[in-house]
Amino acid sequence: MKYPPHLLRLIEVLKHLPGVGTKSAERFAFEMIGWTRGKLSEMAAIIHATPDQIQHCSECGCLAGNDGCLFCAKSATRLPALCVVGNSRDVFAIEGTQEYKGLYHVLGGLLSPLQGKGPETLQIEKLKDRIRRLGVSEVILALDSTLEGDATALYLKQELEPLQVGVSRLAFGLPMGSSLDYVDGGTLARALSARGRF
Amino acid sequence: MKYPPHLLRLIEVLKHLPGVGTKSAERFAFEMIGWTRGKLSEMAAIIHATPDQIQHCSECGCLAGNDGCLFCAKSATRLPALCVVGNSRDVFAIEGTQEYKGLYHVLGGLLSPLQGKGPETLQIEKLKDRIRRLGVSEVILALDSTLEGDATALYLKQELEPLQVGVSRLAFGLPMGSSLDYVDGGTLARALSARGRF
Repeated sequence: MKYPPHLLRLIEVLKHLPGVGTKSAERFAFEMIGWTRGKLSEMAAIIHATPDQIQHCSECGCLAGNDGCLFCAKSATRLPALCVVGNSRDVFAIEGTQEYKGLYHVLGGLLSPLQGKGPETLQIEKLKDRIRRLGVSEVILALDSTLEGDATALYLKQELEPLQVGVSRLAFGLPMGSSLDYVDGGTLARALSARGRF
Repeated sequence: MKYPPHLLRLIEVLKHLPGVGTKSAERFAFEMIGWTRGKLSEMAAIIHATPDQIQHCSECGCLAGNDGCLFCAKSATRLPALCVVGNSRDVFAIEGTQEYKGLYHVLGGLLSPLQGKGPETLQIEKLKDRIRRLGVSEVILALDSTLEGDATALYLKQELEPLQVGVSRLAFGLPMGSSLDYVDGGTLARALSARGRF
């Protein structure tokens, strides 16, 4: 017995959500067909309005509401540092620490040759342009500690060399609250080699 | 730093999906704001059209597309047995086994006094009415083996007693492919007490 065609379409479209496979999409869809018409319309309207309500700042790539980009509006008062992140969500994570008061630059992803994501898909020319234009004192690479993050960091280091700007990267080491026997070998090795005077 | 208001609304509405908390909803939302306008519109349109495209059969409660209910259309040729399930998704699970060729009755949930779900919220009067009207020979309770499923089964057994129809319930025992040391004690106890001649 097959699902009705519309249910199949609903399941297919829900499978586009990250980490959602057939089973989860089916669970979502069967829950949704029990919702009221009003609840479904509300969800549809919010999703439909998203591209008009949420834009990415054309300057730094951060999320911008209808009142423009928060960071670029205050660029003069923020420290002359530029934090380079993979995507706009990372900006919220770093802002949450309250440890950084500078500007951001969203690359729009990380290099991933295996998935055909090369440097031309990232906002790298724009980054160089901004570094020159804004008189940035330090570029902080706040990239994932993954293969893709490492590749992107190395590539950016080379690319930014001619600009003669200080480039730093987030520290590697033990995450807070971890016990040594649960930390993986790679993390422990990097924490050892980057050990600091205590 | 707070999310833009529209992003918050999108996250809120995604949290209505079953099993989706704030973290997952944020992950979905940040992925979705990277989608094209066309992809978002398509998803919105499908969700919006759902109440018009998918209905529940007013007779048996099964899912019905625009061409009506598959089961009720063929009710004369299907065996005079009635399988009672909690929700319309269960129908697909049972049809998938190809072990059953009778009719279905969807209760629209299970009894759950703690969540304020009493018998009046389930299609029980309709069930009695159908049993009388269709001349059903056997009622099969295909309900979850949970507290709610047990409560619903017991309640239905009492309610259906005056109708003098045979009432059976799905067997309890070892799931296929299980090894004894991984099966929980409750399952093992029921499998023991319901053991059959071999």
